[in-house]
Amino acid sequence: MIRIGILGAAGYTGGELIRLLIHHPEAEIVFANSESNAGNRVADVHEGLYGETDLQFTADMPFDQVDVVFFCFGHGKSEAFLKEHQLPERVKIIDLAQDFRLAPQTAAGGHDFVYGLPEIHKAAIARARHVANPGCFATCIQLGLLPLAQAGLIAHDVSVNAITGSTGAGQKPGATTHFSWRTGNMSVYKVFTHQHLAEIRQSLAELQGSLEASIDFIPYRGDFARGIFCTEVVTFDGDEGSPTNPTAEQLAAMYETFYRDAPFTYYIYKALDLKQVVNTNKALVHIDKFGRKAVITCAVDNLLKGAVGQAVQNMNLMFGLDETAGLGLKAMAF
Amino acid sequence: MIRIGILGAAGYTGGELIRLLIHHPEAEIVFANSESNAGNRVADVHEGLYGETDLQFTADMPFDQVDVVFFCFGHGKSEAFLKEHQLPERVKIIDLAQDFRLAPQTAAGGHDFVYGLPEIHKAAIARARHVANPGCFATCIQLGLLPLAQAGLIAHDVSVNAITGSTGAGQKPGATTHFSWRTGNMSVYKVFTHQHLAEIRQSLAELQGSLEASIDFIPYRGDFARGIFCTEVVTFDGDEGSPTNPTAEQLAAMYETFYRDAPFTYYIYKALDLKQVVNTNKALVHIDKFGRKAVITCAVDNLLKGAVGQAVQNMNLMFGLDETAGLGLKAMAF
Amino acid sequence: MIRIGILGAAGYTGGELIRLLIHHPEAEIVFANSESNAGNRVADVHEGLYGETDLQFTADMPFDQVDVVFFCFGHGKSEAFLKEHQLPERVKIIDLAQDFRLAPQTAAGGHDFVYGLPEIHKAAIARARHVANPGCFATCIQLGLLPLAQAGLIAHDVSVNAITGSTGAGQKPGATTHFSWRTGNMSVYKVFTHQHLAEIRQSLAELQGSLEASIDFIPYRGDFARGIFCTEVVTFDGDEGSPTNPTAEQLAAMYETFYRDAPFTYYIYKALDLKQVVNTNKALVHIDKFGRKAVITCAVDNLLKGAVGQAVQNMNLMFGLDETAGLGLKAMAF
Amino acid sequence: MIRIGILGAAGYTGGELIRLLIHHPEAEIVFANSESNAGNRVADVHEGLYGETDLQFTADMPFDQVDVVFFCFGHGKSEAFLKEHQLPERVKIIDLAQDFRLAPQTAAGGHDFVYGLPEIHKAAIARARHVANPGCFATCIQLGLLPLAQAGLIAHDVSVNAITGSTGAGQKPGATTHFSWRTGNMSVYKVFTHQHLAEIRQSLAELQGSLEASIDFIPYRGDFARGIFCTEVVTFDGDEGSPTNPTAEQLAAMYETFYRDAPFTYYIYKALDLKQVVNTNKALVHIDKFGRKAVITCAVDNLLKGAVGQAVQNMNLMFGLDETAGLGLKAMAF
Repeated sequence: MIRIGILGAAGYTGGELIRLLIHHPEAEIVFANSESNAGNRVADVHEGLYGETDLQFTADMPFDQVDVVFFCFGHGKSEAFLKEHQLPERVKIIDLAQDFRLAPQTAAGGHDFVYGLPEIHKAAIARARHVANPGCFATCIQLGLLPLAQAGLIAHDVSVNAITGSTGAGQKPGATTHFSWRTGNMSVYKVFTHQHLAEIRQSLAELQGSLEASIDFIPYRGDFARGIFCTEVVTFDGDEGSPTNPTAEQLAAMYETFYRDAPFTYYIYKALDLKQVVNTNKALVHIDKFGRKAVITCAVDNLLKGAVGQAVQNMNLMFGLDETAGLGLKAMAF
Repeated sequence: MIRIGILGAAGYTGGELIRLLIHHPEAEIVFANSESNAGNRVADVHEGLYGETDLQFTADMPFDQVDVVFFCFGHGKSEAFLKEHQLPERVKIIDLAQDFRLAPQTAAGGHDFVYGLPEIHKAAIARARHVANPGCFATCIQLGLLPLAQAGLIAHDVSVNAITGSTGAGQKPGATTHFSWRTGNMSVYKVFTHQHLAEIRQSLAELQGSLEASIDFIPYRGDFARGIFCTEVVTFDGDEGSPTNPTAEQLAAMYETFYRDAPFTYYIYKALDLKQVVNTNKALVHIDKFGRKAVITCAVDNLLKGAVGQAVQNMNLMFGLDETAGLGLKAMAF
Repeated sequence: MIRIGILGAAGYTGGELIRLLIHHPEAEIVFANSESNAGNRVADVHEGLYGETDLQFTADMPFDQVDVVFFCFGHGKSEAFLKEHQLPERVKIIDLAQDFRLAPQTAAGGHDFVYGLPEIHKAAIARARHVANPGCFATCIQLGLLPLAQAGLIAHDVSVNAITGSTGAGQKPGATTHFSWRTGNMSVYKVFTHQHLAEIRQSLAELQGSLEASIDFIPYRGDFARGIFCTEVVTFDGDEGSPTNPTAEQLAAMYETFYRDAPFTYYIYKALDLKQVVNTNKALVHIDKFGRKAVITCAVDNLLKGAVGQAVQNMNLMFGLDETAGLGLKAMAF
Repeated sequence: MIRIGILGAAGYTGGELIRLLIHHPEAEIVFANSESNAGNRVADVHEGLYGETDLQFTADMPFDQVDVVFFCFGHGKSEAFLKEHQLPERVKIIDLAQDFRLAPQTAAGGHDFVYGLPEIHKAAIARARHVANPGCFATCIQLGLLPLAQAGLIAHDVSVNAITGSTGAGQKPGATTHFSWRTGNMSVYKVFTHQHLAEIRQSLAELQGSLEASIDFIPYRGDFARGIFCTEVVTFDGDEGSPTNPTAEQLAAMYETFYRDAPFTYYIYKALDLKQVVNTNKALVHIDKFGRKAVITCAVDNLLKGAVGQAVQNMNLMFGLDETAGLGLKAMAF
């Protein structure tokens, strides 16, 4: 059994992670740390766990009793934490914040972080002591574009529109997560400036060699709790069927090949909808082709493949388990 | 034109009220007071009003320039306000809080408040200087029971279940109005202890002479923004068709007669749904009959007939206007 | 491995059942029969299964190759099917329709059906060849009342209000499942006459000896896809603390004792909400006490504990497996 | 009073139209034709109108008693209808279908239709006998681009993403309007091929002289009932501030000037959300600028400014009324 510690366990991602781990065949939660909730029962905070666990939040962080620690802090706290705390050498870290996603991914004290997107870094993750788990938007957007970057086909600006559920905004209530405002509503934010653009560009450049094109990303607040649904319009050069402008069939084959070893990411031959992936660790990708343009659609669950599902997938790889262990989830297709 | 002042104008009810009044043929808003938003444009706070008004929130309250003041404070502040401020004798007050709903409705300084439910107090409202506007749940629940109280037929405990939209919880975000929690969810609160029970009992006792029976009220938080939908189970005595146990047809006739002069409250001969009244000042009532029991269904928009729509209706009565002026709203039936 | 056949596999319950069974450690689907979809891939119809199964719907029903058959027909078709088809003696049947829920539960050809509510019939289910799986409303409403019936405490009429998600209405689109109508809406139907009342009364009478009291059940159409949330008001006799009127603590203890061996049904000490059980096989029950009245709240997922989750639980019992096998689901708490 | 006939009055647009007209100060509905509902009360079909009208649907179409007829048929039926029926010369027609939106807008029998977008054709509409009312997506998308076309600035392909509410799919229930499927879901359809592209291109070309650029339109099915929310990314040439690449301030000024005489269409200086326009005839437009690219956001209510609100606006113009008569609607901002 992998012995697990969780920091920041009382937030959304902490709750989702506990949910996954209590049903994981090879995992055992040793501590679930939360300053504000120390002493409270986990099931009183993450109420969907009622009856499933007697775990309590702790102020303690007994790092010597665990094999891996998940950092479920808000952004910016992971780096600060590592400056103040010395973890045993052998304890692995999976950080869900954005602190170490960009190279040089070296934290205070010489922590080297691998960017934990298994679709491109599986071998490195398996060897890693520290993994920086990708962002939710970043996961969805990358999975739609990586095979093209690998083929060197992202030459022109890409138009990306991605809609997120309200859980993406975290547990703290605010004006744009107020039910009265958000229900039946639609809006955009951080137009062209979202912080996930950096990690997206980093991966695309890594696969393609370099990336000149702009990724024009418009994030939307959606009228639903879970999931990210994105479309991406890519422009190719030359005649359809030429090396620089693959046909629809060639693109489908390219994506299927690229994701052959990715147990959760699928090219799907027909139009997809968000609820096909909600409550699963799956990503679905579909492509429509129009002359020199391709329209890519991709969907993930922001809390699972976009956060803790991918984190558990990374843990599985880091500990030599089956990549899918504990992730056989049931889609909420309706 | 009726010259109007609004206190607490930056909250939900303040916003709804402004919305109604800028389209009201006989009303003119002189000031919309808000401490926290003084100087801000109303349309920047109540964003549905963009393009419709240049009004700004003020710190001032020039009571000498208005004919009526709407109190859109939270509960408990109206009474405190009246202790501290002296309004000109001729200025009328419509208070949307619960401070003066219960008799003796006499505030500091000798303010006498009429309970502003036009279905039972139309004449008194027309003469009133001060009106205490009913609560949202209270309006819906009373409109389903008043004709029975008038006929002296509420002899046994009444089972009331009423579901409210999230706007009923006000503008301040919190755990139970967080979109991530509330969407697709259902819960109860203040079971059998909701504060509106007092005004409900007061009206029923007033019409029936006295009220021994319990009103067993379970409030639910609904997965929608606007509206209240309630059911009420009443038990009669004796054979169906006898004076103490009216038939379905007799009940329908009783309700139609009772609401004959109520321009917004209708008995409807078939099952109703909430969206028939959302965004209107209407109340719909329907009754099913089963032996000695009647099941009454009633729906209102919590912000309109349950709050500011009724307040404008009261204003119309207080100033001798057509009771429906400015309230010809369009239902959001779908 | 239990070899499984499914009839009517293309509907909602069929889809949910397949979803559960492909992750069940001891189950293997041999055929998924659907007349209308024969030849189609299951994942093209139940789109949440994309990437998880290559199963196809069949017109065939090779009963000799299976150990158990799930009937996922609409109501009324199971009995007709059994009149026309002869299943091998050793093949067990779990029927999700209401055809055999009421005693004498004997179908054409001498099929004896056990009413499959494990909380009261665990031993009989374990021995049964044929199980009639309870209705969704019936499961939720019974779980709130069974301990009282066991104690002989249902002496007065019970007021039941229960709200169901749209999946309860099945896959075929209609006026009351049209998104435009249902979103933000609330309504009632089959007031006091819902067909599940018969099986509810049957169980209560079985435990209590007899049942004179009326179960006054108002079903609501809720503005969400999954789950049933119900409240039940029960009236006791005598002083609080006397044998006929238990205190809140005594009721809590009574329920905890009654559900001690029920791995999915919990008494919860604080107010619950629907999403605590959505996407799980759990039922949560809470009680508030007011003098001689108790208000019971209960929630289940209509498709899981209210349908196929309970069916799999029954299958586990019938085949001597751990009752919870394959049912360690992750709540969609937000 | 304008005497009005409505054809196809039992559908969504028919219902919305009746809703508007019964509160319109200068309109009188003479007949509301519906084959399937002839003899039924309008309020029994359009249930939000309960208590507001005694109108019945008729099989009759007494064209000689009306001044204007609204065609609320589905697409393709208007042209067929005009081939079969002779309307009196003086009777005006407003067609809500797409049959006559494209030039030459000449129907059987020599009917000339003006494309009824008041923002560009106000004078022609005022003189028109026949108006072809624009499509919902088309209205929203055009209002975001027209000022740029007027300035000749649409030189490069435009990326358009627009999300529609479920009412856009009409009243007939189907798989993608099933509540169980649509709630919490997101999907695309008719990618790059939506039928409204033709009328959008027609208007842009009309203003700009010609249109070479592609309008790359991805339509989304949104998880809400009403409204269209769109973003449009436009690429300019040259340095920011040069004539071919206006600054943000210059664009704001350009839009404000363009819509100066449009009483419902506003440039808004800050990010907008969909519910600011739901239940109104308003359109809001906002622009963010990033180097050579502009991101335009626009929102309308698909049933009002995107359909019957605009139709009434056109009627007002055709009959010399105030353009805003009967359209002072209350936004459902929350």
